[in-house]
Amino acid sequence: MADTAEFIKDLCTPAFVVDLDVAKRNAAVMLDRFQKLGVQLRPHMKTHKTLECADIMTGGSRRCIVVSTLAEASFYADHGYDDVLYAYPLPRDKVQRCAELCERMALFHVLLDNGPALQELKRRPLKQAREISETTGVELYGIYAHCGNTYGCKGREQIEAIAQETTTNLLQFMERYAVPVHSPLGTNFPNFCNSSIGSTPSCSHPVPDMAMLSEVHPGNYVFYDVQQSLIGSCRLEDVAVRVLTRVIGHYPHRNQLLVDSGWAALSQDGGGCLPTGYAVIQGHPELKLTSMTQEHGRVEPVSGPLDFGQFPLGSMFSLIPYHACATAMMYPVYSVHSQGKIVSTWKPVRGW
Amino acid sequence: MADTAEFIKDLCTPAFVVDLDVAKRNAAVMLDRFQKLGVQLRPHMKTHKTLECADIMTGGSRRCIVVSTLAEASFYADHGYDDVLYAYPLPRDKVQRCAELCERMALFHVLLDNGPALQELKRRPLKQAREISETTGVELYGIYAHCGNTYGCKGREQIEAIAQETTTNLLQFMERYAVPVHSPLGTNFPNFCNSSIGSTPSCSHPVPDMAMLSEVHPGNYVFYDVQQSLIGSCRLEDVAVRVLTRVIGHYPHRNQLLVDSGWAALSQDGGGCLPTGYAVIQGHPELKLTSMTQEHGRVEPVSGPLDFGQFPLGSMFSLIPYHACATAMMYPVYSVHSQGKIVSTWKPVRGW
Repeated sequence: MADTAEFIKDLCTPAFVVDLDVAKRNAAVMLDRFQKLGVQLRPHMKTHKTLECADIMTGGSRRCIVVSTLAEASFYADHGYDDVLYAYPLPRDKVQRCAELCERMALFHVLLDNGPALQELKRRPLKQAREISETTGVELYGIYAHCGNTYGCKGREQIEAIAQETTTNLLQFMERYAVPVHSPLGTNFPNFCNSSIGSTPSCSHPVPDMAMLSEVHPGNYVFYDVQQSLIGSCRLEDVAVRVLTRVIGHYPHRNQLLVDSGWAALSQDGGGCLPTGYAVIQGHPELKLTSMTQEHGRVEPVSGPLDFGQFPLGSMFSLIPYHACATAMMYPVYSVHSQGKIVSTWKPVRGW
Repeated sequence: MADTAEFIKDLCTPAFVVDLDVAKRNAAVMLDRFQKLGVQLRPHMKTHKTLECADIMTGGSRRCIVVSTLAEASFYADHGYDDVLYAYPLPRDKVQRCAELCERMALFHVLLDNGPALQELKRRPLKQAREISETTGVELYGIYAHCGNTYGCKGREQIEAIAQETTTNLLQFMERYAVPVHSPLGTNFPNFCNSSIGSTPSCSHPVPDMAMLSEVHPGNYVFYDVQQSLIGSCRLEDVAVRVLTRVIGHYPHRNQLLVDSGWAALSQDGGGCLPTGYAVIQGHPELKLTSMTQEHGRVEPVSGPLDFGQFPLGSMFSLIPYHACATAMMYPVYSVHSQGKIVSTWKPVRGW
């Protein structure tokens, strides 16, 4: 289904489009921010799952990334990527595939999480570390936390409070671990040096203590989305992606427009919690995407009667997705543009 | 990411599996039902979008199907399918592609819906038909209704009431159209003979008057799902598909299991409305899939404490999806089995 359009306005819809300039700016800001803090940025690929965007996020180094599936890990290994962290509690059915990936790359990291999470580690800070240390052939390399609770924040102050709390917990654990009260644990792990927190909100507003971490691993920031703008991670104009959709029906008796993006084209994640429904309709704060079927969306005014003359059949809307990760996942191809001119198409890897 | 497992129990998870015997039975029941009624079954492909399942639903004829996207239409045309109906209000940006498909197949049908829908037609039954008739090069071929309002039903009686109402409306329209009060419309359309209603609920419990229709176009029935069982279209044992998932974490302090299916593997459509959350966990009515992130699901007991010993790390759950169409869409490949032994893999077509 190759689309030969030269400009995004001519694409068949629905279409997922990436503003290359905005994505590059988002990536550069994050790279620069953590370079200045002296912290390694290990960007997460789960939002886009493409080679091209990975190159942008790694500044072309093709090293030091996070993936959410082994399909991603294999894909990036195929393209010469190295130092890949599989950010998932190591699943038993995939140990063999992980072992194969270890052979293919200089560094392939896995996470262990057999029950106790950070809460548990805070209570018994050395137990899991000791268990790992006592397992032949396994070295504890670091500790990794997501701080996904930043997604409940509203505004910079709340984000910074959680970023601070998570960083403090991690650093305290590192400190207790590095200088253990009960020897001989301390000398067993010369490589144990890595501390990493993630989440786009916390990495968009890092607290000074984060400079003491070795790594951060945000992912969504290269695209951002409405959710991130509401959390306070970014401005709405930092969102690099859109779903383009066209008006395909007028229903005056329902005061409703029909558009060609249903939940096959726009994720329902977020559940239509916005005042404007399942997305923000760019330039039309007066409209709401009220509901969707597989291939149809219903657009109504937030209040009052609809002026159908303003939206003739075939006219295009640009939807800013609530959750870019979830919506990108619906597309086999992204159309990438600079100021409306299509410059590339990116094909994400799918599956597990 | 070819999975070489011989049995579904050995698949890497999450995995979307189709019980071939159940799917074939569902397809055979529907084919037989409408053959007996003397009505052409034109199955909808949108649920699975694969060649193999299309062959099952058409009884091998490779004719007379419905598609929801032009990607599907092209895919089926590539594989020798003919007589394809594109069940979508003809979108202006795709007219050229539709024209090309018309050249490739003996019959390629499009739908026109410029504003007035069935409600409107009931009030002004001849207006849209006249407009179509007055357009050179366009012939009105039939009338197509979905009766999606059956999705609000509970039980056979309610389904039959809507099936009857829709059929009556369609037949009345046909009658008024075939013998118009205001000539000369009647003689202009010798081909106008087609009346079709769809929806898996109405076609699972057809009313006798549906024998007077020329076609029906259900789609979901080949898989069915929890939603259809709640509507009353099928029994839960008629559902042919599962999402397989494994336990990857124990969180006693949260009374919670972590499983490896998030919203990338199981659609959020339905919004967790079930007493058991986002799916039915086969054999475990006491468990609930309470929430999901991209790659994780959280399972808790419906009430009381969780017996973790019953669900060791690595143990597998079989999830019956709430909406099979929405969940199938998340997978680049389906594993097809007969009594647990993998017999085939099906690859769906994606995009628009």
